[in-house]
Amino acid sequence: MPASDIPQKIWPSAEIISDLAEVRKHAPLTHVLTNIVVTNWTANVLLAAGASPAMVIAEEEVADFATIASGMLINVGTINSFDAKSMKSAAIAAQKSGTPWVLDPVAVGALRYRTEIAKDLLQHKPTVIRGNASEILALAGAVGGGKGVDSTAASSDALPLAKELAISTGAVVAISGEVDYITDGKETIAVPGGHILMTKVTGVGCSLGALIASFLGIQKDPLRAAVSASAVFAIAGSRAAEKCSGTGSFAVAFLDELTNLGV
Amino acid sequence: MPASDIPQKIWPSAEIISDLAEVRKHAPLTHVLTNIVVTNWTANVLLAAGASPAMVIAEEEVADFATIASGMLINVGTINSFDAKSMKSAAIAAQKSGTPWVLDPVAVGALRYRTEIAKDLLQHKPTVIRGNASEILALAGAVGGGKGVDSTAASSDALPLAKELAISTGAVVAISGEVDYITDGKETIAVPGGHILMTKVTGVGCSLGALIASFLGIQKDPLRAAVSASAVFAIAGSRAAEKCSGTGSFAVAFLDELTNLGV
Amino acid sequence: MPASDIPQKIWPSAEIISDLAEVRKHAPLTHVLTNIVVTNWTANVLLAAGASPAMVIAEEEVADFATIASGMLINVGTINSFDAKSMKSAAIAAQKSGTPWVLDPVAVGALRYRTEIAKDLLQHKPTVIRGNASEILALAGAVGGGKGVDSTAASSDALPLAKELAISTGAVVAISGEVDYITDGKETIAVPGGHILMTKVTGVGCSLGALIASFLGIQKDPLRAAVSASAVFAIAGSRAAEKCSGTGSFAVAFLDELTNLGV
Repeated sequence: MPASDIPQKIWPSAEIISDLAEVRKHAPLTHVLTNIVVTNWTANVLLAAGASPAMVIAEEEVADFATIASGMLINVGTINSFDAKSMKSAAIAAQKSGTPWVLDPVAVGALRYRTEIAKDLLQHKPTVIRGNASEILALAGAVGGGKGVDSTAASSDALPLAKELAISTGAVVAISGEVDYITDGKETIAVPGGHILMTKVTGVGCSLGALIASFLGIQKDPLRAAVSASAVFAIAGSRAAEKCSGTGSFAVAFLDELTNLGV
Repeated sequence: MPASDIPQKIWPSAEIISDLAEVRKHAPLTHVLTNIVVTNWTANVLLAAGASPAMVIAEEEVADFATIASGMLINVGTINSFDAKSMKSAAIAAQKSGTPWVLDPVAVGALRYRTEIAKDLLQHKPTVIRGNASEILALAGAVGGGKGVDSTAASSDALPLAKELAISTGAVVAISGEVDYITDGKETIAVPGGHILMTKVTGVGCSLGALIASFLGIQKDPLRAAVSASAVFAIAGSRAAEKCSGTGSFAVAFLDELTNLGV
Repeated sequence: MPASDIPQKIWPSAEIISDLAEVRKHAPLTHVLTNIVVTNWTANVLLAAGASPAMVIAEEEVADFATIASGMLINVGTINSFDAKSMKSAAIAAQKSGTPWVLDPVAVGALRYRTEIAKDLLQHKPTVIRGNASEILALAGAVGGGKGVDSTAASSDALPLAKELAISTGAVVAISGEVDYITDGKETIAVPGGHILMTKVTGVGCSLGALIASFLGIQKDPLRAAVSASAVFAIAGSRAAEKCSGTGSFAVAFLDELTNLGV
């Protein structure tokens, strides 16, 4: 099936509107283990969308918190050996307690240390894996055994391996790009929209991973949760781009659009 | 005394204007040990208000820096075992050298590890304890022995236990909420104002703790310092809310209002 | 030579325009090891200017990444013992592989621990050293043996010792202030412009260090690279100051001006 034949979902689909309303109603407690560059931005994105973020990272606390959270994100963007231990504990606790969780394999493929960590985390059954095409290709290759990485890959190019990754891991795989593709290996949904400026503000993709974790807290179908969060991002990004005059005002407008979407 | 009978302080009280002017004049060096989500925001809040923030965190440096600082904040929001050691050293040094300091017991009560750490830090005589109602109730309960935590508590509900906490620890206790209450156990001041958007931008409360530390650097009466800083926040928040169109522009407008307040 | 006779470079010099265009064209991969206060801001500054930032910090990854990066920054602003190990490994790898790198000696002089670390890092031949007058004086004094630090020093006051530091280390030294001075010990260039608001947003100076590292990725002459990056900052700061109403909107406008400069 060529990429152009994949069914699309965009705002204002009734399902997306309903999922966002549920997030605003229940403010799902979202446990965010992420990189040091995007903590503040990610918390503000989740708050603007109506979720309740908490960035607990201590090895002594993560298992308890992963157990009580509605959803969780593990993002390996600036991982070190201490984070790695905490993330492992959190993933084990989430798996054991049934907390849905998202793995964001930032820069996997480019660096061996985090690639091994991400592979190991896969054993604890992430509900969703979100990355750009290169990261998804690298993770799929690492799991399947040594396939190449193309850092300039389009999101559609990563789709065949993304489907394999979804089937082998049981996770929904969300590939971010000019068009986002979300697949469980059988069904695939395309989410177009967004804007190139979303790649010029640090952490937009990282915060989408976190928002998917929030949506998993109120929507049991992980394919739908990932699609809804991605579509919310796409429309907020498109609208913000119309109102801004550079990357600084784009980031501000993006949070404003998220604040007001569907309200 | 019902909450409605508690004396109120708001901008433009002469005392508050005077205290803010002193901050702008002396730029008190404020040692901020805080969580990884709010470092940038907190530094920008302090700079906008005229203080001089520094986020020294290494165990090798904190004691020296706590000694030379005019005021200090310890916020346990994303504490780990390394931060815990640094915060302990910093608290000991502040107590020894007479540097006034603020304890912000983020999420104490919800997580046992940090609750023990916060209880231990109390031994080093914080000048001010700032938190939301749940955190103050939890900290008071932890100290007094097992009282409950209500995460939906209003700030006025926490006032009786806050007064007990103030008396047992010798600290001024500042409860943030729709109305802020600041008490030394005998005298209590209410600071109304602010806006609900202050809870939709991450770290606003955390940065109030830091600003109280800055005000302690120029105002020896800790009750007055905490009231003045809280009132500055309330007016900046009210004014920013009138000019914004979402959480992104609220945060920007809040810093702008702080920049221009009383100038 | 009095400071007023030092040759000046400002936007729109053809060299500066050309260097910025090269950054936008090649998006140099910039390895940023910096403090926890400014990671997000620094990444956004580099993205707005067209560079490609990455904040890899794990001891297990930094040497590999420093080797493949086009330029690197080491900023000791919130250094701890783990960062110190990573920064040492990164500096060794950069020196070995020929990756140009910038040392930002934040608060060196004021704190002994980081002063020793910064002195040690000098052995690995930074390409550029960037700091304010006090930091440059302190680093020069530490290297030369105990000269004083004046935290209220003007950038021109630090110039004689900066030249000595440049000659003894082989690095270009960039002193940030009301006027920036950049020197290799023989030639000195002044970059006027900018605005006092650049000192009221946290991390502006830190992010200049990172942008110099990006420019080193496309401009082999380190004196010119540091001058161009400084001039880009000065013009973006001047223009942003005209459009803002406080520190919050200044930061937003600064990123917007960077986004649009020379495009």
